[in-house]
Formats: sequence, structure tokens, C-alpha cells
Amino acid sequence: MVETTLFPSERLSEFSARVFEHYGVPRADAAQAAAVLAAADLRGVDSHGVARLHTYVDMLELGRINPRPNVRIVRESASTATVDGDNGLGLVVGPRANEIAHAKAASAGSGWVSVCHTNHYGIAGWYAMQGLARAHIGWAMTNSTKLVAPLFGAERMLGTNPIAIAFPCGSEPPIVVDLATCAAAYGKVEIAKRHNAPIPAGWAIDRAGRVTTDPQAMIDGGALLPLGSERELGGHKGYALALSVDILCAVLSGANWGPFTPPFALRQEVPKRSVGKGIGHFFGAMRIDAFVDPAEFGRQMDDLVRTFRATRAAPGTSGVLLPGDPEREAEALRRAEGIPLVQPVVEDLRDVSRITGVPFA
Amino acid sequence: MVETTLFPSERLSEFSARVFEHYGVPRADAAQAAAVLAAADLRGVDSHGVARLHTYVDMLELGRINPRPNVRIVRESASTATVDGDNGLGLVVGPRANEIAHAKAASAGSGWVSVCHTNHYGIAGWYAMQGLARAHIGWAMTNSTKLVAPLFGAERMLGTNPIAIAFPCGSEPPIVVDLATCAAAYGKVEIAKRHNAPIPAGWAIDRAGRVTTDPQAMIDGGALLPLGSERELGGHKGYALALSVDILCAVLSGANWGPFTPPFALRQEVPKRSVGKGIGHFFGAMRIDAFVDPAEFGRQMDDLVRTFRATRAAPGTSGVLLPGDPEREAEALRRAEGIPLVQPVVEDLRDVSRITGVPFA
Repeated sequence: MVETTLFPSERLSEFSARVFEHYGVPRADAAQAAAVLAAADLRGVDSHGVARLHTYVDMLELGRINPRPNVRIVRESASTATVDGDNGLGLVVGPRANEIAHAKAASAGSGWVSVCHTNHYGIAGWYAMQGLARAHIGWAMTNSTKLVAPLFGAERMLGTNPIAIAFPCGSEPPIVVDLATCAAAYGKVEIAKRHNAPIPAGWAIDRAGRVTTDPQAMIDGGALLPLGSERELGGHKGYALALSVDILCAVLSGANWGPFTPPFALRQEVPKRSVGKGIGHFFGAMRIDAFVDPAEFGRQMDDLVRTFRATRAAPGTSGVLLPGDPEREAEALRRAEGIPLVQPVVEDLRDVSRITGVPFA
Repeated sequence: MVETTLFPSERLSEFSARVFEHYGVPRADAAQAAAVLAAADLRGVDSHGVARLHTYVDMLELGRINPRPNVRIVRESASTATVDGDNGLGLVVGPRANEIAHAKAASAGSGWVSVCHTNHYGIAGWYAMQGLARAHIGWAMTNSTKLVAPLFGAERMLGTNPIAIAFPCGSEPPIVVDLATCAAAYGKVEIAKRHNAPIPAGWAIDRAGRVTTDPQAMIDGGALLPLGSERELGGHKGYALALSVDILCAVLSGANWGPFTPPFALRQEVPKRSVGKGIGHFFGAMRIDAFVDPAEFGRQMDDLVRTFRATRAAPGTSGVLLPGDPEREAEALRRAEGIPLVQPVVEDLRDVSRITGVPFA
């Protein structure tokens, strides 16, 4: 059992917001960025919450991220836009570009926005969920630093390139899909290493390109495998999805793609060349009433959710979940009890406090 | 080695077209339907070509499919439409609805069309590729008869629900993603059974919901597993993708979803209840110049394709492919040499000839 300390979500997000403000991020943007981080912590996606604050600080401290970006549309049509994030925080650029997608959907039925010159935007699911209250289906993708091998490749060429889609229901909670297009998260490999435990065959390859169960062999120049793992179980499919995300986020917007996607953290390898500006995101919004009566959609979605919950359960499992269930359960618990932070994250936040002078008690 | 007979693609598609015409399908629609079947055979997707003609014939013979559908838009916005296929052949309804998506993209930057009251539409990749010549990115999805279990489920609840996306390049051939959201195709389970061979763990479960390596145990009331297989390798991700396809194709259009999706073939189980009309498709089109200068997009895509081909190869493999490579190679070969049909398919076509009186020599 890992020891954790509980912190109220509000306290963490106040701290994050003040840290961003310290670097000249305008108050409203700082609050927005902090809210996206807080959403990750609340939903149990610990890798994308305040655990990442120190990395954002490193980049801001060195002037690698623009605290006051001029986020602007560089090309558009009735239902599409390309946005240049002016090297701002992804946590600031992302919400604005996503809002453009939803505004386009309001006027044209759907809105699709590809974003260049941006940085790490946090948790993909948060973006997809922004349309739920408006009866929109929301989509969010991003590319990221290379970590994943294409099928039959022996080196890192793609990011973990997530796809998130959120569907509103009627009286049932929404379905929120949020998946990285690799077989398993890098964080899980790190955890196995800390516990001196092997990783399952299918998660990773070593630097020679062979499937490995040794977490250290993946970390030392190996790579994660795409969703589907090897060829036999469909690794070509996860690779194709990761590549599609890369093209929609980066080639369509003019950002860096594939192995040239710049790193999120200072200690990560700098790509050999630059083929665009920053990293890329892709957002989509679809107005449900542009397709079908929203009340009928809600009734059918409720029926679908109940039908899937009633699936006969596989032995040794607690039965079928709907995408978004685990995160919603985590959020209910963490809103009541607080966010559990492990000691290294608490130490990191104390370090951020020392660097910035923002109190963290 | 399986024995095959080679047939020129044109001869097979002429035969298919005349068979459709025999059932009252108008000449242009019959030619369109035959062209979609031929595309599958040319691209090496044998399961979706003339091997399926007998099944279409069974349905037309019994009046289960409307040969002269009134395909119409029932709701629309600048960038979206919902289409009712009037129970036509999917091979006829699909191309028309897809064309509506591309026409919307021409005027509004992107076009998204959800289709109800339709039937099996053939190979998803064909639809996605229809935008390539117009510098559009094309998307195509469909739901289908239940065959796949949701993660932690012990029964069939979802179709193999494919996702296809086609991206034009500059001078390189296009990238064509076309993947079913299950770990492996049902056809592969059938092949293993014919060879008395086990299937890999991760493809399927038996009727009790346990992972099985016995193809017969899957066929007898078991189910395929989603892409990612079990929880450890990301089976929840493939399940979430399959469910998303189902919602976009069927809930958004008013078609039947999940376990209620009607069967393609007569011998398949009839669903317990009906929750909509027919099966559902979803098409998308994005005009590249609505996002970025198409010449620049072409240059970047060419660079991306060459960069990925130059990935260091994993040992024991011939190196990294791009999505669409195997199908393009099959097409080059089959255009030159003909379509290899196995004897049972040839017998099936002879039977179609006997039923319809259309000569097949």
C-alpha cells in the first residue's frame, strides 16, 4: 500500500492557479488551467493532474511556454478552424480552441478545430465533456512526445495519442470515452519497475525491438506497443489509430508530428528536426439536434446504457462497465474525501512553492 | 495451400450488377453496388466481396431488402445530415449518404452523415477513399450484427463495428485506415476451425465468458473480444471504440444498436426487440483546404510516410508498413492477375446463377 495524504481539490487548484499567475498567466487563464488539472485529479487520472505542475513550472521558468499567448484562428470555414496557440500552455490554448469547435457546432451543426503551436493540454476527457451540458457530442485528441513504436518497428515514433469522445445521455450519466492508443500507459511500466515486477508481454519492446517483460528494458530506449500489442492481437489497428490522431492533430494544423513532436519535460530527448510548430490538438463538436430529436436521443442512450449494464457478466468480474464509470466513481469519492497525493508529488509541490513563493501548507 | 480459381474483376462485377438488376435494382445502383463488392475483392478483403453476394441474394429473394429505396435526408444542418435509407441495399444507400457528407464538406468545410434503415454496406475503406481525389479526408463507420463481447461481459452485444479513415498524400499513396474494433475477425476463427487449429488467447471467449483457444467454443455461443483483448492489454479501449461507433451510426440516426442490430444473413439469430430502423452507418468528410494549404499538407504527409517507412525494423519483421499498404499491394496484383476465389465461393456464385438465371461461366 502506497501512503498518501488527502488534499481538498479546491486547495490544490487554488495553489496551481496562483503558480500560473506567478509566471504572468492572466488570472482567468490561470484559473482555467488549474481547473483542467483539478479535473484529472478528481477523475482519478493522477498522471495528468497536479503531479505535472512541476513540469509546467520548469517550462515557464525557462521561458519555453508563452504565458500570454495570442491564440488565433489562422484559417476557417463554416464548420472548421485551424488555431495557432502561440506557444501558450495547452491548458489555456486547448479550452479556447475547444470552445471554437462548440461555437461552430452551434451555428453549423458541427465544429472541428485542429491546433498547432501548443503544449501539453492535460486530460483529454475534460475537453470532450465540455459539450455535455449543451447536448453536444464532444471529441478531443492530442499528439505527444514519442513513446510508442509502430507495429513492426523497433523504436519510438508516436505519442500515446489519446482519443476522447463524450456522449450525453438522458437521465443516465454520460458515456465518456478517454483512451490512449497504446496498450498500457507509461506510468504503469514505471510502477512495475518500482515494485521490481515484470510487465505483461504485449505492453512494450526493448531497444532491439523485441517484446519484453522487463520494465527497465522498455525505459532504457525501448518503446510502448500500440493498442492490440503484436500483430496477432491487432497491433496494426492501434498503430493506425495513433497515426490518425497524429495526422488530425499535427499535419492538419501545421504542428510537429510523429517522432518530431517536442517533449513535455526538460529531461526528455529533443527531436532531430522540427517539421512544424509545437504539438497539436484536435477538437470536435456535434450538435445532437442537428441529427435527431435530443429527447429521443436521450431515451435511446438511457436504454443503451441499461442494456449494456445488464450484460451477463464474465466469470471473475463484476460485470460490464460503461466508459466513464470508473472516473465518475473516483470523482464522487474524491470530492467528498479529497485528492490522495503520494509523498513524491507532495514534495514536488513544496518545491514549486519554494521556486515561486506561492505558499503550499 | 487452398486451391483457387482466378477471375477477372470486371467479369465478377458484371455478374454482380446483373444479379442486382434481376431483383429490380436500377441499373446505375446495381453497378454501384457491384463496384463496392469488387473493391473488396481487389483490395484482398475477400470476406466483403462476391463471397457475400449469395447473402444479398437471399435477402432480396425474400423481399427483406428494398431494391428501389427512396433514400432521403430526414434532418440536416450546414455540416450534418441524417439519412433514412428506406431499407435499401447498404451498397446503394451507403454511397449516396457518403456523397452527401462530401457535398456538405464542399460547402461547409466538413460533412457528417448518420444513416438509419440501411443494410450491410460492404467494405468500410471504400467509402473513406471516395474523398481522396477531392483532397478530402474521408471517414466511414458502420454497426453490424452482434458478435463481440464488451469487456467483462459473457455474451455478444456489439458488432465488429469498423472505423475507416483515408488521408490523401502528395506524391505518396494515400494512408487508408480500415479496422474492425475487435481483436481478430470472425473469418479467422472459422479458418482455424477448418484447420483444426487453436486460436490465440485474446481473440475470443466461450459461452461461459472464459477466454478460449478453441475456435468451436467461440462459434457455439461464445463471442469475439474487443481490440485490446482482456483488461490487462486494453480490452476496455476496443470496447469503448466499438460502443462509440455504435452510437454514431445507430443512436444518432435512429437505427438499431448493440444487440438489437438486425442480422445480415438469414441463418443468424433475430434480435429480441427492435429499437430503431435497420442498421446504421456514419460518414464524415473534411476538406483539407478548410484547415491548411493542401500543397503543404501533401508535402508533410509525404515526409511523414517516408519517415515512418524508415523506422528501424523489429527483428523478424520486414519493417513498418503504412495503413493501406497491404490492400494496395493486393490490388496491384489482382488487377493484373485476377481475383482468386476458393471453390466454395465459386459454387455459391454458380448457385446464384441458377437462382437468378444470370449466366456465370
